[in-house]
Amino acid sequence: MKKKLYVIKIGGGIIDNSNGLNSFLADFARLSGPKILVHGGGNAATRLGDQLGIATRMINGRRITSAENLSVVTMVYAGMINKTICAELQGNNCNAIGLSGADANSILSAKRDADPIDYGYVGDIVKVNVDAVRLFMANNMTPVFCAIGHDGNGQLLNTNADTIAAEIAIAMSQEYETELIYCFDKEGVLADANDENSVIASINRAKYSELKTNGIINSGMLPKIENCFHALENNVAEVIIGNASVINKSNKLFTKIIL
Amino acid sequence: MKKKLYVIKIGGGIIDNSNGLNSFLADFARLSGPKILVHGGGNAATRLGDQLGIATRMINGRRITSAENLSVVTMVYAGMINKTICAELQGNNCNAIGLSGADANSILSAKRDADPIDYGYVGDIVKVNVDAVRLFMANNMTPVFCAIGHDGNGQLLNTNADTIAAEIAIAMSQEYETELIYCFDKEGVLADANDENSVIASINRAKYSELKTNGIINSGMLPKIENCFHALENNVAEVIIGNASVINKSNKLFTKIIL
Repeated sequence: MKKKLYVIKIGGGIIDNSNGLNSFLADFARLSGPKILVHGGGNAATRLGDQLGIATRMINGRRITSAENLSVVTMVYAGMINKTICAELQGNNCNAIGLSGADANSILSAKRDADPIDYGYVGDIVKVNVDAVRLFMANNMTPVFCAIGHDGNGQLLNTNADTIAAEIAIAMSQEYETELIYCFDKEGVLADANDENSVIASINRAKYSELKTNGIINSGMLPKIENCFHALENNVAEVIIGNASVINKSNKLFTKIIL
Repeated sequence: MKKKLYVIKIGGGIIDNSNGLNSFLADFARLSGPKILVHGGGNAATRLGDQLGIATRMINGRRITSAENLSVVTMVYAGMINKTICAELQGNNCNAIGLSGADANSILSAKRDADPIDYGYVGDIVKVNVDAVRLFMANNMTPVFCAIGHDGNGQLLNTNADTIAAEIAIAMSQEYETELIYCFDKEGVLADANDENSVIASINRAKYSELKTNGIINSGMLPKIENCFHALENNVAEVIIGNASVINKSNKLFTKIIL
């Protein structure tokens, strides 16, 4: 039987709340066995951009990334957020190692084609370096990935964190029974955006089509759920969307994505 | 006989010049055998601080580091500079892995005592994690350290890059014949600050005292040379101060520090 591996992604809603982040990281550190953390940080990057007079433009929930925007996201994701998380995890006796895709060539990406939309320095994942991730975990290190990849020719590329989490989970599923958990600021996918108690317990393809047709799930959630199906179709054992406390099992409410 | 290891530190003068940095990194990538890069980035941090209205205060060449300054240096050193360097090295077929002290607990520091001068979030190195560095190098990874340590309790600490280079060189000298090279924007220590051709070929303790007494070397150079002597007194085999081209041996001018 394959060993269990958690791949957990946290979004900006958790990162922006330092108490919430501390409590999440303490829970994460306590999870036994191999685990990988992936984080975003888009809100903080937008705030730094604003302070520096560097405008943020989004299309379909994706950041148009000029050279200046790339510098901002690299500072925020790979610098401030990644290192703050790694130091906190070390303080919780979890031997974190922070990684961008360039580090140990861990995530090779390709610049997205400028046609039909020129996203600038945005990358799509070509390959997760399973050997490097395995080496870190075999030596009791916990990889903490930020949402920055590289193209192998010297160029950093802004790469979506949800997609990084899904692709890492898929790549590691060759040798692990992988559970992919997306943590965000809600308890799960809501049937009614104004009712926190309307968490949908499970979503399959048919349910997803229905929710999409009825306009119940919005533009930000669509690519996230697509990532979930993509992971399940590629050997990831389990995929969950919930809030930060879903990992300490205190919260029984979450959305399970199933095929 | 011990295997040779290079520990090379580059300063802001090299980092700020993108052509110079590219050419240095190509040379660095070509060095055969195990090697470690350490970088500063103070100039870029000061510029970002200025843009954000966060003032930079220095005492004895050391940055007074408030929480806001720490956030700036973490973004610049661990984010922008470290990841730009790692991506470039990957593009030169050098399997770089960027590290702050928090990553893999690679550099444990202690917050400097607030008496007599309160430097804020500034750390002094307690321990270099030789096991982690050895593991990376044994797996064909080249560590690239930025000047950020951590205290093991969740706090990042601004840590002098020259000192990091010296302490890594010392720690690794248990098993390697280590050559420590400080690269900066001059060809070496100058006998006359206005004459680039006045490089002093070698400096020992007696010469150092003389240069200090005569006011020939200035405040920034003093702690650097102290670091050099400290390294030599602790089993580092060779210590050199020169410009970026000293590592490709095209430049025969440099300053060798000897006991």
